[in-house]
Amino acid sequence: MGLSRNFTSDNVTPASAAIMAAVAAANQDRVPSYGGDAYTARLQAMLGDLFETPVTVFPVATGTAANALALAQLAPPYGGVYCYESAHIVTDECGAPEFFTGGAKMLGLPASDGKITPAALAAAIATAKDMGVHHVKPAALSLTQATEWGTVYDPDEIGALAAVAKAHELPVHMDGARFANALAHLGCSPATATWRNGIDVLSLGATKNGALCAEAVVFFGDASRAVDFGRRRKQGGHLWSKMRFLSAQLLAYFADDLWLANARQANAMAAQLGAGLRALPGAQVLQSIDANEVFVALPEAVVLHLERAGFGFYRWPVPAPVDGVSIRLVTSYATTSDDVAAFVAAAAHSFG
Amino acid sequence: MGLSRNFTSDNVTPASAAIMAAVAAANQDRVPSYGGDAYTARLQAMLGDLFETPVTVFPVATGTAANALALAQLAPPYGGVYCYESAHIVTDECGAPEFFTGGAKMLGLPASDGKITPAALAAAIATAKDMGVHHVKPAALSLTQATEWGTVYDPDEIGALAAVAKAHELPVHMDGARFANALAHLGCSPATATWRNGIDVLSLGATKNGALCAEAVVFFGDASRAVDFGRRRKQGGHLWSKMRFLSAQLLAYFADDLWLANARQANAMAAQLGAGLRALPGAQVLQSIDANEVFVALPEAVVLHLERAGFGFYRWPVPAPVDGVSIRLVTSYATTSDDVAAFVAAAAHSFG
Amino acid sequence: MGLSRNFTSDNVTPASAAIMAAVAAANQDRVPSYGGDAYTARLQAMLGDLFETPVTVFPVATGTAANALALAQLAPPYGGVYCYESAHIVTDECGAPEFFTGGAKMLGLPASDGKITPAALAAAIATAKDMGVHHVKPAALSLTQATEWGTVYDPDEIGALAAVAKAHELPVHMDGARFANALAHLGCSPATATWRNGIDVLSLGATKNGALCAEAVVFFGDASRAVDFGRRRKQGGHLWSKMRFLSAQLLAYFADDLWLANARQANAMAAQLGAGLRALPGAQVLQSIDANEVFVALPEAVVLHLERAGFGFYRWPVPAPVDGVSIRLVTSYATTSDDVAAFVAAAAHSFG
Amino acid sequence: MGLSRNFTSDNVTPASAAIMAAVAAANQDRVPSYGGDAYTARLQAMLGDLFETPVTVFPVATGTAANALALAQLAPPYGGVYCYESAHIVTDECGAPEFFTGGAKMLGLPASDGKITPAALAAAIATAKDMGVHHVKPAALSLTQATEWGTVYDPDEIGALAAVAKAHELPVHMDGARFANALAHLGCSPATATWRNGIDVLSLGATKNGALCAEAVVFFGDASRAVDFGRRRKQGGHLWSKMRFLSAQLLAYFADDLWLANARQANAMAAQLGAGLRALPGAQVLQSIDANEVFVALPEAVVLHLERAGFGFYRWPVPAPVDGVSIRLVTSYATTSDDVAAFVAAAAHSFG
Repeated sequence: MGLSRNFTSDNVTPASAAIMAAVAAANQDRVPSYGGDAYTARLQAMLGDLFETPVTVFPVATGTAANALALAQLAPPYGGVYCYESAHIVTDECGAPEFFTGGAKMLGLPASDGKITPAALAAAIATAKDMGVHHVKPAALSLTQATEWGTVYDPDEIGALAAVAKAHELPVHMDGARFANALAHLGCSPATATWRNGIDVLSLGATKNGALCAEAVVFFGDASRAVDFGRRRKQGGHLWSKMRFLSAQLLAYFADDLWLANARQANAMAAQLGAGLRALPGAQVLQSIDANEVFVALPEAVVLHLERAGFGFYRWPVPAPVDGVSIRLVTSYATTSDDVAAFVAAAAHSFG
Repeated sequence: MGLSRNFTSDNVTPASAAIMAAVAAANQDRVPSYGGDAYTARLQAMLGDLFETPVTVFPVATGTAANALALAQLAPPYGGVYCYESAHIVTDECGAPEFFTGGAKMLGLPASDGKITPAALAAAIATAKDMGVHHVKPAALSLTQATEWGTVYDPDEIGALAAVAKAHELPVHMDGARFANALAHLGCSPATATWRNGIDVLSLGATKNGALCAEAVVFFGDASRAVDFGRRRKQGGHLWSKMRFLSAQLLAYFADDLWLANARQANAMAAQLGAGLRALPGAQVLQSIDANEVFVALPEAVVLHLERAGFGFYRWPVPAPVDGVSIRLVTSYATTSDDVAAFVAAAAHSFG
Repeated sequence: MGLSRNFTSDNVTPASAAIMAAVAAANQDRVPSYGGDAYTARLQAMLGDLFETPVTVFPVATGTAANALALAQLAPPYGGVYCYESAHIVTDECGAPEFFTGGAKMLGLPASDGKITPAALAAAIATAKDMGVHHVKPAALSLTQATEWGTVYDPDEIGALAAVAKAHELPVHMDGARFANALAHLGCSPATATWRNGIDVLSLGATKNGALCAEAVVFFGDASRAVDFGRRRKQGGHLWSKMRFLSAQLLAYFADDLWLANARQANAMAAQLGAGLRALPGAQVLQSIDANEVFVALPEAVVLHLERAGFGFYRWPVPAPVDGVSIRLVTSYATTSDDVAAFVAAAAHSFG
Repeated sequence: MGLSRNFTSDNVTPASAAIMAAVAAANQDRVPSYGGDAYTARLQAMLGDLFETPVTVFPVATGTAANALALAQLAPPYGGVYCYESAHIVTDECGAPEFFTGGAKMLGLPASDGKITPAALAAAIATAKDMGVHHVKPAALSLTQATEWGTVYDPDEIGALAAVAKAHELPVHMDGARFANALAHLGCSPATATWRNGIDVLSLGATKNGALCAEAVVFFGDASRAVDFGRRRKQGGHLWSKMRFLSAQLLAYFADDLWLANARQANAMAAQLGAGLRALPGAQVLQSIDANEVFVALPEAVVLHLERAGFGFYRWPVPAPVDGVSIRLVTSYATTSDDVAAFVAAAAHSFG
């Protein structure tokens, strides 16, 4: 497919120039390995400032590693993690959370827009408590932000869910693979989007939004929650010897608001795409476009036409019946207004 | 410590310029994620040519990941992996092999020079078979090349060990974190150093020898041994979305014999270091210097002097008693003849 | 509650007299430990005759152990096991299957009567195959017989499900915690109920139907599927040193058709209970009563009355809305016709 | 072999009559399942009295389960458990501790008599601390009592080892598969033999000393150490539905000092055996005979003669060289003075 026609995912993109430059700049000197370097120390301080609270930060290379290691820190083998029933941790990580926890269950809750509700969470916990040792122990809550359907929890929604969790002593994890996109949408501070509303641990993604391969597991507050996480990361094979190359990416990502600039561009392109599609009779936009994903139902003939024209995207079944075929379109920091216009024009043309 | 005075490890080095350039060059276009890119395809072909046999190659970012995933492919939870009793997989990976296998035991065999013997291996397997289900099942053999003591198995030694393993249907893994250094020493073909003498799976390191963060798990021969390894890597969080950045490093590493050139430099520097130290009365070089590591016993006062002079190295206890203090010195592709000369001169001076 | 009023489960019962006598009779002599005894050898032969095919039999003490060990033999850590979404292995074993497999997922399929359908199974496998390494690998099918809703798959239904599984090379497990009850209902041979219709491994329960603590994992056909299962059982802590006391229970269970006689009594009592409840206006029997469980919806006042009268049973929420409260009643070999009559009379009386 | 000639292990014996009677007596009534019965409640109280402190007790059926579950409660996947290098948990449980902990390492310390020393323990912990995240985290100490060589730690020795462990915040586990034999030797109170000298968790064996299949994991002091152990047991498949049959065995075991009476008989028979063998020139008793195991070196011809005469025992290699062949002889509560005399006479005769 043509490069500019690729809407399959935000992980098909190259890295932002500033991030690549930071990696190259770090490529000098012999420096201590395994995170004993100055880059990693600076990252720790930078994220403490950014989140306005002490944090303990562990860079890793993939989002699956960030999520699975974080959940292993929170849930024992006989534990259960409440989450959206089609969350990435349930459907797309080949059982990584079960593997890293040593057997915990991902307990999926329904949500038509990807945002689970306090009532559903409370009911599920109550059922578990009734069943005693036969049921896994309620151990954690995991929220995806932005969600798998491109929607975004607002801080009050997070706070309400976290309140239910904490009433039962469950820590709260956020899968922030697209945290920057959510934050760009919310316009609030990183603190408000996380720990001020009850998030204890954040998988903070950068790869989809401009890095080569960089995520961070961020523990908020005192370091007690993070105890031994360094060994967990090492045992998982996720401790880089040349850690500077991970930390340098993240330093550049957060410097000069690059992360938010990138996310705003991605979000804006999704909004433009949504507006263009909504204007087409016969196209049905399926979810609120809060971040950088667009789900739309189109007639089969239109989808076929777009595929043949070289546009890249996934057919994406949705739970509720739709007219035609539902597809997912993902924009990124590298998506241009022309890219979007070309897609909308092709769609419009195919409606004929 | 002064940059040129750091002999702590070969992982404190920056990346080779050619490898960094390759990463930068790969930073364009939207390309398929998760290894569906052309870089990864080229790597597969290149390693097939290099090893003169079909291979199945899985790039990962760390040596611990390569080893632990490879061993998990070979050993069940109730299995045992025979290896040197102080192998990296036993002592330095925080239990990663046990974790990834789901409980297998690393069964250490003694070896004064890091090279286990066919007789010790055969005896250990015989004991296991006598004990039946109470003992873990003999499941695999793992050899480190170059060894943890800087020595190198020659191909006949590998073949003899593999023959014992295969007489009991055990597959053979090689931890090749420093495979290039071993190969530079042996001067044989990669094929002779591996599958032609019974190696089934190789953890092929590049990070210590010039990459940013690149290793590869290489399965030799038909793909049956590698079945489902892709899922295992994904479940371990080791599948990069932007895989091109791993594959591009490895392409540059093997191009134009960079890997061997780097290894030869590291080995030559270790040889120079050993020669310089051997010339000092009161210094006792403790192992054959086959690759890029030097173990030497020096008087305590000399070691202190070198530490205070800003040289970096580890005090490294050895099983047999020595006069003074034993230390480990590691050279790398970035070590220069002047670096070595400065160290030797300082040591000589401190003997006074 | 009064003894005869306990309908909570079939595991509240004592053991059949013949089984207790067999345990006492085995309590003499010093005999080889860990299953090297003659009792265990006889059990192996007896089940081969019973199932009309070679079998490999592993006695264990609990149904959770039987299921979890059997599934661990079939599914890798990165695998998925298809089953009914509220199967015992999903909801009642505290994550044992996930733990013993090292991370595999239980992939629940919907079924209003506890019996999953070939179409749902085929669709789920197709989705998994589309997702590649991001999804766990389809690894096994597990059917509960009798089901969690007291219904029973007939042999053709099993065969049709197994055919879908085998078209994708998935082995098929049967959770036969209440296999005797199912067989008593079907009236076919054990072979027809299992391997002749595609079952590869059976968790064969005895504890609920008259034993103290005895289940058996039965592998059908040649022993290849059972390779190393002995080590898996040992590693799970489920190999008894004094195995004779497990095997003796099972020998007595299958001798003189005790297992079927017990199951027929339990089933007959459930049928009598169902008939009595169906005759009450306002009671709604919710599932076909094929085995020894009765699910019935009753007015809240009636349920309260029965509870206060000392009858034991669980309130048991069902997916579809019902009038009043749904409860579960379980009969056993120890249930008498008088026990049932007393319950029905009390229910009738409380309707006033 | 003749029944009375079997010295292979104490697990080849039948159960004590009083224990079998207790099981039979428990076989009445419908009682709550999963440990909600009165037998289990009585056991909890009885052991609290016996140990003179609050305890939390979890009956299980095998020693491997007791050890592995207890260690999983103490050690994380990235943890290490210090123990004797040939402890049962290292060599005889097919990797159960590694499996149940999810990857922890058993860190073996040398000990010629099976009793590790405070100095060796302290040194090993110091090495681990030096290595940081590359080494597993020191997590627990496990002592076998009586040891694998039939010796017994005295309370002061236990206290000294526990003091080292606790200085580093490591909890202490005792593998008491033969705890009764040790206690019979020591003559002190159960409390002095355990928690008063630093034991936190005890695997308390009964199977080898007269039960059918009963062990108990006993947590001393407040219940905080035991939190969630019930779920761990359930997830391991070790929660019996008809728990009364486990608890009833243990109630009878501790009633009327049956456990100590049985142990004293076993110990006395080992002492008689040792005395008889020591009187033979050419026999070398290899360890202090504190409990019910005798290790003796005999000429090969004598061993062959005894084997051919139908005596059962294992050839048991020992680390230090011996003249002839070393064998292990185990006595039990069922061993008689005549059994021992016959063995000694046969040995004497074969010396000619």
